[in-house]
Amino acid sequence: MQAVPRGCEVRWDRQGGCVTIICMQTVRVDIPAAAAILYEIRIGAGLLGDLGAKVRAVAPAPSCGIVTDSNVGPIYLAAAVRSLEAAGFRVMTFTMKAGEEYKNLATFSAAMDVFLGGGVERATPMVALGGGVVGDLTGYVAASLLRGVPFVQVPTTLLSAVDASVGGKVGIDHAAGKNLIGAFHQPRVVITDIAAFRTLPAREIRCGLAECIKHGVIRDAGLFDWTAENMARLLALETPAMEELVARNVAIKAAVVGEDPHEKGVRALLNLGHTFGHAIENVCGYGEVLHGEAVGLGMIAAGRLAVALGKFSAGELQQMMEVIGRAGLPTSLPGLDVEKTYATMFTDKKVKGGKLRLILPTRIGHAEMVNDVPAEAIRAAIASLGL
Amino acid sequence: MQAVPRGCEVRWDRQGGCVTIICMQTVRVDIPAAAAILYEIRIGAGLLGDLGAKVRAVAPAPSCGIVTDSNVGPIYLAAAVRSLEAAGFRVMTFTMKAGEEYKNLATFSAAMDVFLGGGVERATPMVALGGGVVGDLTGYVAASLLRGVPFVQVPTTLLSAVDASVGGKVGIDHAAGKNLIGAFHQPRVVITDIAAFRTLPAREIRCGLAECIKHGVIRDAGLFDWTAENMARLLALETPAMEELVARNVAIKAAVVGEDPHEKGVRALLNLGHTFGHAIENVCGYGEVLHGEAVGLGMIAAGRLAVALGKFSAGELQQMMEVIGRAGLPTSLPGLDVEKTYATMFTDKKVKGGKLRLILPTRIGHAEMVNDVPAEAIRAAIASLGL
Repeated sequence: MQAVPRGCEVRWDRQGGCVTIICMQTVRVDIPAAAAILYEIRIGAGLLGDLGAKVRAVAPAPSCGIVTDSNVGPIYLAAAVRSLEAAGFRVMTFTMKAGEEYKNLATFSAAMDVFLGGGVERATPMVALGGGVVGDLTGYVAASLLRGVPFVQVPTTLLSAVDASVGGKVGIDHAAGKNLIGAFHQPRVVITDIAAFRTLPAREIRCGLAECIKHGVIRDAGLFDWTAENMARLLALETPAMEELVARNVAIKAAVVGEDPHEKGVRALLNLGHTFGHAIENVCGYGEVLHGEAVGLGMIAAGRLAVALGKFSAGELQQMMEVIGRAGLPTSLPGLDVEKTYATMFTDKKVKGGKLRLILPTRIGHAEMVNDVPAEAIRAAIASLGL
Repeated sequence: MQAVPRGCEVRWDRQGGCVTIICMQTVRVDIPAAAAILYEIRIGAGLLGDLGAKVRAVAPAPSCGIVTDSNVGPIYLAAAVRSLEAAGFRVMTFTMKAGEEYKNLATFSAAMDVFLGGGVERATPMVALGGGVVGDLTGYVAASLLRGVPFVQVPTTLLSAVDASVGGKVGIDHAAGKNLIGAFHQPRVVITDIAAFRTLPAREIRCGLAECIKHGVIRDAGLFDWTAENMARLLALETPAMEELVARNVAIKAAVVGEDPHEKGVRALLNLGHTFGHAIENVCGYGEVLHGEAVGLGMIAAGRLAVALGKFSAGELQQMMEVIGRAGLPTSLPGLDVEKTYATMFTDKKVKGGKLRLILPTRIGHAEMVNDVPAEAIRAAIASLGL
């Protein structure tokens, strides 16, 4: 900070005549760089049994908050609370209704009432016990409570384990689109108990696999091949395969997020399939088409668009579609409203100056950001999903 | 990021027998330090006339948002919008009802509807045109929209010019207390037109002077004396005196914030009078006792407490009260509910482990943080205000 000497600013009219002289002072504010953040993602079968000690290790405090939903709560909440209490926490709980449609300001407000009414302090950690919806909402609650309290992710779905639980993107939805209100708030630790995946419907496992396939496509051809080869073991939730899958995928996500925490560059590649996918979810209705299904379809649309633009080979598109299909994910969506989907894509956060920025695959293991794709090519890629 | 070799964790029962062996993998996430932030506070009479160019200089974008309130809007909004449009912005406006009681989630939600419905993009700046309430709400809107858009502060009150507009603390109130939901979000620039102070009621100017006196007490005995000597000129809003007052005060605030952006140390000293003050506002009703008035009273309570604890001299307390009185601020509050005020202090964000952390003056120009002040001494300090 420094107060510079009093200066004057002269304004001129359009003919070049001096109109006003404004004297002013300028004070500079210099906020130093924030410290680097380091945290661990722990992956194993049965880790939930030791939740309290793991949370205390990163966030010692008299109290903690835990958020879950009406699907996950009945299975895991009581044990989680016991473990947290045994570790010395006074525990405040908030159970939201399950579903993306409840990841909104009303639920955020209700959570605030519980934790502010319950005596949250700046050191009080907020634990997200559930899938991506619970993680996103809890993270935004943690970011906003008292301008930020510690946050712990306990993903109970494959999708959130490999995607939403890593990287600090948190937020809620708005009528205008998904995740439009939020923050960047990194967790103190991520605790992934892969045994919890066993209570998931098969459809949810498939959704998680969609993001894993995406990671392979944008960055790791070896992972792409490994996933294809091990698909049966993964769908059967075999522990060693699942543990390796989660570890390899979060390692990719962690590397990308570490390079670009605020999505100013390479992190945007993680959005492969997401601009199409968010629009598909929005148009078809959240819950009708699940996020992972929409991402799988979005990757196919992006792949077809890349082929049409001469950036991607038809053979690799075929390979990608085959793996998506082998994961049990839809590869087409008959009856999709092309115009509505196209229009909805423009409400995406990645729109800049009214222009879509799309992530397109260029080969298995590599993707790039493309601006100024012709509208007709985008419409054709959407339309291809309906065939 | 690195995937460490697969490790195992052994759990023991209370008798020392091995209970379970959990194999797990750990992936580390390493988020690099964020860049330093540098911004300017520009202070002068008439700066609002050039608002559009000043916003464009720090946030070039196709669109911008502007938030004001029902007091400030009728006076300044039309000219501000013209200036922003002349600078090439498509302008979205949101006018909130004036008053701390509207700095809440309902107003936040309504603002989100306007800007998300209006096509905000990541580069779209949000301009806060008004006092501290407008600045706090707009800043939290800017922090949360698309996980953060640029923010510009245009304080139109002395209080917000010397306090809330600098430092990036933004947020909204909750039934449990003030500013309990929020973020740290630094502005790109602060544009303070001191000519705007001329449309303020005298009571609002006095509230601003309370924070200026506070800055002198905690850090700058020279400023404290200068403020006392120039009080008549300041109350008459003489331009050179007012410009110097604002510049010297924001320089102090900027220095403190630069040293400690997230209030982990020295920044807490800025809360002198605020833990008492927030409780007084809450108990008496926002608007009944204004923020600056409550801070003035809070400083007196803190000063009396410091005298009682042998940390501050009775003579300096007298000096402080005299300046507060000379600014036209109340120095007592007959009928204040002592128990209710005391209890409300514990809902403050600065409470840690159920303990109040209070800022107390030690001499004019110096203050310190004190933990573990006996409850009876705090009650006596509150009670002294009612005499």
